[in-house]
Amino acid sequence: MAKNVAIAGVTGAVGQEFIKILEQRDFPVKSIKMLASARSVGKTQKFKGKDYPVEELTESSFTGVEIALFSAGAARSRQFASAAVKAGAVVIDNSSAFRMDPDIPLVVPEVNPEDIKKHNGIIANPNCSTIIANVPIWPLHKANPIKRMVVSTYQAVSGAGQAGMTELFNQAREILDGKNPTMKKFKYQIAFNIFSHDSAIGPNGYNEEEIKMVKETRKIFHCPDMAITCTCIRIPVPRCHCESINLEFKDSMTPDEVRKLLEHAPGVSLIDDRANNRFPMPIDAADNDDVYVGRIRQDESLPDNKGINLWVSGDQIRKGAALNAIQIAEKLL
Amino acid sequence: MAKNVAIAGVTGAVGQEFIKILEQRDFPVKSIKMLASARSVGKTQKFKGKDYPVEELTESSFTGVEIALFSAGAARSRQFASAAVKAGAVVIDNSSAFRMDPDIPLVVPEVNPEDIKKHNGIIANPNCSTIIANVPIWPLHKANPIKRMVVSTYQAVSGAGQAGMTELFNQAREILDGKNPTMKKFKYQIAFNIFSHDSAIGPNGYNEEEIKMVKETRKIFHCPDMAITCTCIRIPVPRCHCESINLEFKDSMTPDEVRKLLEHAPGVSLIDDRANNRFPMPIDAADNDDVYVGRIRQDESLPDNKGINLWVSGDQIRKGAALNAIQIAEKLL
Repeated sequence: MAKNVAIAGVTGAVGQEFIKILEQRDFPVKSIKMLASARSVGKTQKFKGKDYPVEELTESSFTGVEIALFSAGAARSRQFASAAVKAGAVVIDNSSAFRMDPDIPLVVPEVNPEDIKKHNGIIANPNCSTIIANVPIWPLHKANPIKRMVVSTYQAVSGAGQAGMTELFNQAREILDGKNPTMKKFKYQIAFNIFSHDSAIGPNGYNEEEIKMVKETRKIFHCPDMAITCTCIRIPVPRCHCESINLEFKDSMTPDEVRKLLEHAPGVSLIDDRANNRFPMPIDAADNDDVYVGRIRQDESLPDNKGINLWVSGDQIRKGAALNAIQIAEKLL
Repeated sequence: MAKNVAIAGVTGAVGQEFIKILEQRDFPVKSIKMLASARSVGKTQKFKGKDYPVEELTESSFTGVEIALFSAGAARSRQFASAAVKAGAVVIDNSSAFRMDPDIPLVVPEVNPEDIKKHNGIIANPNCSTIIANVPIWPLHKANPIKRMVVSTYQAVSGAGQAGMTELFNQAREILDGKNPTMKKFKYQIAFNIFSHDSAIGPNGYNEEEIKMVKETRKIFHCPDMAITCTCIRIPVPRCHCESINLEFKDSMTPDEVRKLLEHAPGVSLIDDRANNRFPMPIDAADNDDVYVGRIRQDESLPDNKGINLWVSGDQIRKGAALNAIQIAEKLL
């Protein structure tokens, strides 16, 4: 049952998380190939105590590979995924390249594992903010369809890779030392500041991150008309996204019902301690598999108890990217 | 026309801002009294180049005072405001003590200046998050009534006073130096982390900050049934609150109409540059009077163009507290 695995983009933040999770979950690896761009050739990558050379990602990288985990950006996925498929691999792609392709499944294993079977060589991994919202709202939606969702995000800098984290810490030190912050990765100051998400803005004024949340959730939930609106914001936190989620249900839904539905839901942990004002924080979710949920409240602005407010936090490198992809790979086994 | 002014709580973050704004706006001050708790006695406070002794706030502090600016916490307002009124002063109170008293006006000068006339000695200054939301949405509400509002806040640590800022910077340095962060002002780590607002939580699960936004907005707008729901979050930013505001209007409302209504609205500045992904940030609003507005988008999750998303940032010590109170005082002149 052990598989020949390749990781495309192994030196990136998600690539490193792939390595860690494959080890932690003892994924049955027969062989492993460490692939990255030419400038990483010469580096080595440890896996289960053994050093592997980092090889250049090319069209001929995939001979004998059965599972190819891609997280090297959408351009490289478009360039190399078909070569991996031709070589016989199943590609699980963390980029946005194929997510909205109607012939390619887009999968959150807690939500739509059955879609995995429909693949023709490529399975797309959703955007991090989408995964972190979808895991806790799916059990609610199954019990009582969500009519409308209003989301505001609080997104960590590592959503923009390791360079985002470096920039946050460098700028924080500069500002504490009375210097002007240096901008490299982000256009605007991120330490002790926040800004609207740094992705391209479409003609309707929504940025790509917001558009992904809307379109990907509809595809994963098989609800092409689900009403969703979203505002995505970058905040000075190294790791883990938070989201303020307002839900309008078809029928009445109380906080107690939400708690019961989420208590044993796969991939969800509750932190909802009103007495101690203790709710999910990024430092809770960091390096953990689950999406943490709290601040479960009746939205009193909607009639007939049809509204619920939630607050969630999830590790966007882990469940929002690498873990979700490896959970898909586990379903493939 | 010059007035005898007293500042209760002059050593605090808002007290210091009172001093700065009275100077900057050249408020007609005949005399000024610097009041604080006993432990600040012995300090001096500069005003227009002159040093004043800080005196203890007592019931006999207000002889001859005409305008008393209070920002010393709700308990001290309850204890001393009536003494100031008895002495003949008009109290403008920045605490939550009197805001929901039906006999006391709660005023945002851009919204309901006419309510000032109804005062019986005390005028309440609203909560910071409420003011920052109300200034930009009022011109929209006047043109097309707001049916429902969903708000998520991104609140700076100085909402909890100067100690909040000190804690943020101290913890940031500790973490950058590889140490564990020290918690004093806040129960949970704030540097490189976020948490649900640190105010008391009511039986319905909403914290005081959220309840203020709902109740105060209804009172200021004279809309006792306005549907509002809110999630308030503390973020690692020293100064200026941001808010993601989702609005449902009675009739259709387009982003262009919103822009036209806000372009010349008092107290509002637009930063809505999609081409450069340039929208309001805390560092824009810091030390400025206006509430900055951007990310003006049609909420496509609502039918008939009845939904609008907005992103706002305002200095919560300035317009969210001290400036608003002094603008009320200016209307009194």
